[in-house]
Amino acid sequence: MRHKDEHKQKAIIDATVKLVNETGFAAASVAKIAREAGVSPATLYVYYKNKEDLLVSTYVEIKRKFGVAVTREYDPTLPIRDKLARFWRNAFVAIQEEQALFQFSEQFARTPYADLVPPEVMEEYFGPIFDTLREGIRQKIIKDLPIEILSVFMFQPVMQLANPKICAAFGKEPGDVDLAFTLAWDAIKL
Amino acid sequence: MRHKDEHKQKAIIDATVKLVNETGFAAASVAKIAREAGVSPATLYVYYKNKEDLLVSTYVEIKRKFGVAVTREYDPTLPIRDKLARFWRNAFVAIQEEQALFQFSEQFARTPYADLVPPEVMEEYFGPIFDTLREGIRQKIIKDLPIEILSVFMFQPVMQLANPKICAAFGKEPGDVDLAFTLAWDAIKL
Repeated sequence: MRHKDEHKQKAIIDATVKLVNETGFAAASVAKIAREAGVSPATLYVYYKNKEDLLVSTYVEIKRKFGVAVTREYDPTLPIRDKLARFWRNAFVAIQEEQALFQFSEQFARTPYADLVPPEVMEEYFGPIFDTLREGIRQKIIKDLPIEILSVFMFQPVMQLANPKICAAFGKEPGDVDLAFTLAWDAIKL
Repeated sequence: MRHKDEHKQKAIIDATVKLVNETGFAAASVAKIAREAGVSPATLYVYYKNKEDLLVSTYVEIKRKFGVAVTREYDPTLPIRDKLARFWRNAFVAIQEEQALFQFSEQFARTPYADLVPPEVMEEYFGPIFDTLREGIRQKIIKDLPIEILSVFMFQPVMQLANPKICAAFGKEPGDVDLAFTLAWDAIKL
C-alpha cells in the first residue's frame, strides 16, 4: 500500500512541475494536473487539500531534493572553504541535472505562494550550508553579514552558470566549476 | 501620427508583459494581448509579424530600458571600481522600480524564444558595462575571465537582492546597497 501511495504522489508532483512549467501557475488547474498524473481529482485531494497546498508541497519537495543533493558527502572535518566548494559543485550538478525542478522553484519563489512556505524548511534542508557559513563568520574567515546575503552571493551565480539556456559556454572545461567557485569564495571571504 | 503610433506600441508592450506575467507564455495569445492593449489584432499585426516577433521585441525593448537605466550618468573618467559601483546601484534601483518588466525578462531568458534575440542587443545596450570590465582586465584590476562569467558574478546577486519577494530584509538600510556591492567587487577583482 505504502509503496503505491508514494508512486502516486511522485506522479502528482511530476505532473505539477510539468504543467506549471509549460502553462504557468494560473493555467495549471488541479483537474489538469490530476489528468496529467493519471489519477482522479478525488485521489489528488486525498494527498493535497487544494491547489495552494499542492503547489507549496511540490516546492518543499523540490527544496528537500536539492538539499539532499547539495549537502551530499558532507564532511564536517573539512576546512570551511572546502566544505563550501563541495556544496557549490554539488549545486552545479544538481541544477544541471534537474532543470525542470529548478525552473519550477525559481518561478514559484516569485509568486505569492512563496509566503506560505514554512520558514523552517530552508534551515532543515540546507542546515549544513548555513552552519558552515556561521562557523566561517565565527572564525573570521567569512564576512560578518546576514546568512541570506552571503547565500545570495555564494549560490545565485551557480544557478545561472548551471543553466545551459543562459550560460551555454560554461561548464564545458573540467576546471570551469572550480574556477567559478573561487569568485563566489572571494565575494564572501574576509 | 508618429506620436499615436508610439502610444499604441507602448500599450501593446505593456499588455504583453502583464498577460505573460499573469498567465505564462503559452496562454498569452495575440488575440488576448490585443484585447488587453485595447487594439484590434489587425492593428497589432501592423507592428509585429507574429507572437514570436511580439515577445522577442518586448524583451529587446525591456533590455533597452534597463540598459539606459543601468548606464545612466556614465562617467568614463571615473576609476573602474566607481564606474561598476554606479552601474550596480543603478541596476538595484531599476529592478526594484520595474519588477513586472524584470519578471518578464527573467522568464523569457528561460524559454526557447531567447535564442531568437539578436546577439548584438546586449553589447549595444550594455556596452559601457562590458567596456569597463574589459578595461579592468587590461589594467589587471579584474580577473581575466570571459565577460559572461564576470557579469554573472557582478549582476546576478543584485537581481536577487532587489527583488522584495526574495530578499524582503535587504535594501532597507542606507548602506545596504554599497555594502553588497563590495561583495560583487571582491568576487571579480584580481
